[in-house]
Amino acid sequence: MRYSQLLLPTLKEEPSEAEVVSHKLMLRAGMIRKLAAGVYTFLPLGLRVMQKVEQIIRDEMNRAGAQEVLMPCVLPADLWKESGRWDEYGRELLRIKDRHEREYCFGPTHEEVITDLARGEIRSYRQLPLNLYQIQTKFRDEVRPRFGVMRAREFIMKDAYSFDADEEGAEKSYQQMYNAYSQIFRRCGLRFRAVEADTGLIGGSFSHEFMVMADTGEDAIVSCNECDYAANLERAEVGKIVEEMDEEMRALEMVETPNQKSVEEVTNFLRVLPERLVKTIVFETEKGVTAALVRGDHEINETKLSRYLGATQLQMAGDDIITEVTHAPKGFAGPVGLEVKIVADLAIRGMKNFVTGANALDAHLINVNLGRDFKVDEFVDIRLARAGDPCPRCSGRLQVSKGVEVGHIFKLGAKYSEAMGATYLDQKGREKSLIMGCYGIGVGRTVAAAIEQNHDENGIIFPMSIAPFHVLILPVNTKDAQIMKVAEDLYDTLFEKGIEVLFDDRDERPGVKFKDADLTGIPLRLTIGEKNLRMGKVEIKERRSGEIIVVTVEEAPEVMMKMISADYSENR
Amino acid sequence: MRYSQLLLPTLKEEPSEAEVVSHKLMLRAGMIRKLAAGVYTFLPLGLRVMQKVEQIIRDEMNRAGAQEVLMPCVLPADLWKESGRWDEYGRELLRIKDRHEREYCFGPTHEEVITDLARGEIRSYRQLPLNLYQIQTKFRDEVRPRFGVMRAREFIMKDAYSFDADEEGAEKSYQQMYNAYSQIFRRCGLRFRAVEADTGLIGGSFSHEFMVMADTGEDAIVSCNECDYAANLERAEVGKIVEEMDEEMRALEMVETPNQKSVEEVTNFLRVLPERLVKTIVFETEKGVTAALVRGDHEINETKLSRYLGATQLQMAGDDIITEVTHAPKGFAGPVGLEVKIVADLAIRGMKNFVTGANALDAHLINVNLGRDFKVDEFVDIRLARAGDPCPRCSGRLQVSKGVEVGHIFKLGAKYSEAMGATYLDQKGREKSLIMGCYGIGVGRTVAAAIEQNHDENGIIFPMSIAPFHVLILPVNTKDAQIMKVAEDLYDTLFEKGIEVLFDDRDERPGVKFKDADLTGIPLRLTIGEKNLRMGKVEIKERRSGEIIVVTVEEAPEVMMKMISADYSENR
Repeated sequence: MRYSQLLLPTLKEEPSEAEVVSHKLMLRAGMIRKLAAGVYTFLPLGLRVMQKVEQIIRDEMNRAGAQEVLMPCVLPADLWKESGRWDEYGRELLRIKDRHEREYCFGPTHEEVITDLARGEIRSYRQLPLNLYQIQTKFRDEVRPRFGVMRAREFIMKDAYSFDADEEGAEKSYQQMYNAYSQIFRRCGLRFRAVEADTGLIGGSFSHEFMVMADTGEDAIVSCNECDYAANLERAEVGKIVEEMDEEMRALEMVETPNQKSVEEVTNFLRVLPERLVKTIVFETEKGVTAALVRGDHEINETKLSRYLGATQLQMAGDDIITEVTHAPKGFAGPVGLEVKIVADLAIRGMKNFVTGANALDAHLINVNLGRDFKVDEFVDIRLARAGDPCPRCSGRLQVSKGVEVGHIFKLGAKYSEAMGATYLDQKGREKSLIMGCYGIGVGRTVAAAIEQNHDENGIIFPMSIAPFHVLILPVNTKDAQIMKVAEDLYDTLFEKGIEVLFDDRDERPGVKFKDADLTGIPLRLTIGEKNLRMGKVEIKERRSGEIIVVTVEEAPEVMMKMISADYSENR
Repeated sequence: MRYSQLLLPTLKEEPSEAEVVSHKLMLRAGMIRKLAAGVYTFLPLGLRVMQKVEQIIRDEMNRAGAQEVLMPCVLPADLWKESGRWDEYGRELLRIKDRHEREYCFGPTHEEVITDLARGEIRSYRQLPLNLYQIQTKFRDEVRPRFGVMRAREFIMKDAYSFDADEEGAEKSYQQMYNAYSQIFRRCGLRFRAVEADTGLIGGSFSHEFMVMADTGEDAIVSCNECDYAANLERAEVGKIVEEMDEEMRALEMVETPNQKSVEEVTNFLRVLPERLVKTIVFETEKGVTAALVRGDHEINETKLSRYLGATQLQMAGDDIITEVTHAPKGFAGPVGLEVKIVADLAIRGMKNFVTGANALDAHLINVNLGRDFKVDEFVDIRLARAGDPCPRCSGRLQVSKGVEVGHIFKLGAKYSEAMGATYLDQKGREKSLIMGCYGIGVGRTVAAAIEQNHDENGIIFPMSIAPFHVLILPVNTKDAQIMKVAEDLYDTLFEKGIEVLFDDRDERPGVKFKDADLTGIPLRLTIGEKNLRMGKVEIKERRSGEIIVVTVEEAPEVMMKMISADYSENR
């Protein structure tokens, strides 16, 4: 491809609309343009990268025995009403009425459609296992789309759905997808980690997220420094080790804490460490009011709490409820004398002589003690894990790193097949519900995550396997006939070898070209300049390492071929 | 691919929902399933065929210098308001409101989006010409979707848009696309014809439709038996040859024709041929009332008439207007004494002593003559062409055949660039409007058209280049170990040679397998049966010709390789 003919509008300036690095770089490198909030056009460079990712996904899904289909974008409401999600899904579901006022939605995910297909086409255990996938445009009407294609409203997703006869088969399908996903992200040249995750709106019993590691990622990944335990922050458990404090109980005392409400204020005022305070947070759910206790330096994990409570609607109580329950304004709640359900985090079990709110204005209690002063209904792991916490699986310690979620696999069980009557006949002719799994990869998101992980201050550093081109040929002076002759010849030679080459034939200053070369992140830059050429040589620069080697014109294709295949084979 | 593992649910019965042969066969061959009116899921076999067509399109678009992009499906209303089409497009435009009540539509075509992109990215003549294309899901809310994927509401389309500095460049881009389209349909193995067409809602000045010839097609193609003139029925002109009748004018006379209104009734009653009658049809447009005259055996072409009148809203006048204009009820209108604009078809110019309505109940005039009895404002070609009509370009005669429209190319000119301010700076720094063209191919429609053209009573006959598989291996008895050994070996051998093979490993009766083989239309069937195998032989059947050859097991791969490449090269 000749650069002069390519629509590759690079930007010198940082676009003000972009917050994260991948969004900035995708705009600057002419990969995408915004059409509306969370709605993007992919320009040629961006689409090339996306199609590379798609091809890797196809390869590995096919290899794993999955079959590609293509379901529609516009889905009839009836199916969503059958599964119950027409009401459950909320405002992220883009609802549409056609000219006859019939209700549809723009599919944000396709469990309903695939289950409908399965109940129509699957009759017998002999048709199982079956795994169907598609690569397709989806829409989720995010309230605040941001970060470019990372959290877009319209996006390309690979979604797969497996159907098995029983749990055992479903386990196997799940494991196959786990392996295929690992292989996909490996082949994309990405450092990633599969972590345990919550199942959320899709439902089902078990799930893993695939996270591309990146310091700039928005997702926190909790992992053990000794075993292979890893989970996302929402899901991450904390080891049940309780350190009993070796102290005598002191007498309970109420102290005045005028205008001191926050943990910081109160502990400063009382000159104790935050670890000696217990926070009392009052929550409302559809099942009533609950007080949750965590240590002053810990944070509540609402996902864990609501899972423990079995509540789908959980929120911090409003001021009126707090006043009703604690007989005091917000900021002074404490467990002593409280007449609601009290759930305490595991870390509190070993504490002695701690500080709590006094359920009275401008007052706290000190030397509070479990059992003596109040009773806890249950001790449960309800806090956000943090670095240094004990591992829930071994004696190791947890560490926290950052990443971007690019894939998510779920064991669905019979949730959809039962709701929609998708059954098959087993060996003995008995009708049984299909056991399902579902598996998603955000294609555009994977591209963005690759950039979050692979960039420097000058621009993108594409892994070879998903780079828009393998090689950029950069003639330093397009007016020099000899340089251009060598450049054209090398362009032809590389093209014939099947190498994807972008030929920067633009009549621009070298500085502009070098900057664009770094920005667009093509792995190998072949620079043809006067000085080297006088000795029959050209320069190869590796974008990632910055290393430059000077080789003869004749050697250049072979050297680059080797560098390219080395890069590919590294990730197979 | 093993048949036993493929979701390929063939149907024995004709599906009652399908009217046309491609729809029936796509359902029966397990290529598609309906999700909602005009909304289909592509199953693995159907998607494979569609992806083959897509790949041919990509190849040829890239070869023609076009660049692939991907625009969104969900388009902001603002852009459509800028072009004026938000109001013009009518109810086929699927309108959507997001959670913030902002207006969008599901893109039925992308002139607005691409023009918006162009005005943002194109600055200089040096960036021209530019041709951008995408292969993407579109939605048109047809009032009566039918014929399966042929006239679906949601469908996959390849749409391309060219930008040029001037008309000359735009002509060249148009011609390139004309050539690329010819090459695409040739490579798909289809008999097709490019015909002149009307521009319709897209607007612009000139266009061609690409029609796949098929007796079962819904579009009529008018072409000359001597020159290369071809047009669709809407557009087809008729030669201006006027045959002057060699007759004396006779005296005008009114005759009673009680209850005789239609051409058939009146000419039977008066015992004259329909060619001796002139029909008077009264039309209303936004520009007023017009009477159009055509010969009794001819039909009005409303597209031609509205183009001549420059009217966008044309419809036959209601009874009230007819009564007001003719002073008689409907069915007796005639040109004599009529005080509205009168436009007559060219074929009327040479007529003498003809019959017309008398503008009076139950009465017609005979021996009516032009000039003497009434005046025509203009003679224009306003009738539907039919077989035997003179060619508008040469002395040949027109013929009418049937086809399916699969592609459409338009010269748009500056319609969108002017409306939306998409300009560039020319060599002298002057700001000029971009000159555009747009070019569409219905991908699913091409698959359906291929089937309309290539089928027999037993099923589909896929052209090799778009067949879902090249070869079907059919072991007659899966319980025979020797047969299965040979089948497995041949499967491996063909796979290694890069041939796409479907291996019918199902434990089904041979009759079922042979029927499915014919139905799914895979070009070559390799049958492995006991009798032939005893002599070390297998049978190759060509689906299209039905010819069977018997070759040794060893020869089989090579023979099939040759048959496959012969088929491919034929259409290059």
